[in-house]
Amino acid sequence: MLQFCTFCKIVNGEFPSNTVFQDEHTFAFIDIRPINLGHTLLVSKDHYENIFDVPDTVLSHLGKTLKTISTAVKVATGAEGMNIGMNNERAAGQIINHIHFHIIPRFSGDGLQPWPGKLYSEGELKEIAEKIRESF
Amino acid sequence: MLQFCTFCKIVNGEFPSNTVFQDEHTFAFIDIRPINLGHTLLVSKDHYENIFDVPDTVLSHLGKTLKTISTAVKVATGAEGMNIGMNNERAAGQIINHIHFHIIPRFSGDGLQPWPGKLYSEGELKEIAEKIRESF
Repeated sequence: MLQFCTFCKIVNGEFPSNTVFQDEHTFAFIDIRPINLGHTLLVSKDHYENIFDVPDTVLSHLGKTLKTISTAVKVATGAEGMNIGMNNERAAGQIINHIHFHIIPRFSGDGLQPWPGKLYSEGELKEIAEKIRESF
Repeated sequence: MLQFCTFCKIVNGEFPSNTVFQDEHTFAFIDIRPINLGHTLLVSKDHYENIFDVPDTVLSHLGKTLKTISTAVKVATGAEGMNIGMNNERAAGQIINHIHFHIIPRFSGDGLQPWPGKLYSEGELKEIAEKIRESF
């Protein structure tokens, strides 16, 4: 537990939350500022900042729990689709530095628009693929 | 393998792709219509539609591989952040019905805006939490 972390305090019961699920490794509660009603946050019980420092075993637990939570949120809200998202670091919109997945119920005509796609110039795609392959 | 699935054909080598990673269960390649350059797709080798039908073991493998790919994409692109996303079903923007995570490098000032948050009316939050708890 990290002393000044909001999500650690929620997991630990020091801050209130509308908890929907917990098991040995994971904890899920309602986002109080939802994209759509029923938007749920899934966090690890232990403190990790984001995808870059979380251990594989914890990531596996979060992965499996994503399905459990998504299914329950779908049943409860009647959602026609589900976005799952994780923002890592400030530039990606991460606000609380405790790893968390957003599980967001979606409905036809809810008006949320995907981000626009860009185009690669000739050669650029192969170049970036090569760079990524070299970075493992 | 599903006969008319684009991602099955990519995994199987029948359709070309700029592959960056593969192991026993997972396969990653560059999205040809990226949100930001270096945007990578991580898919299961076997065919599943989305979060609702993928087995836990496959989800665990995908979860662990998310970290591997995100780290390589960050190194290769110099990204300051990373969005991870999975769209499930048409209403959530899923276009190819083969489970896949988007791994999207982010940069300060890249102009991509988060979706706006809504507010719960009094009682609504507790009510939806209760409904979700009853849906497990």
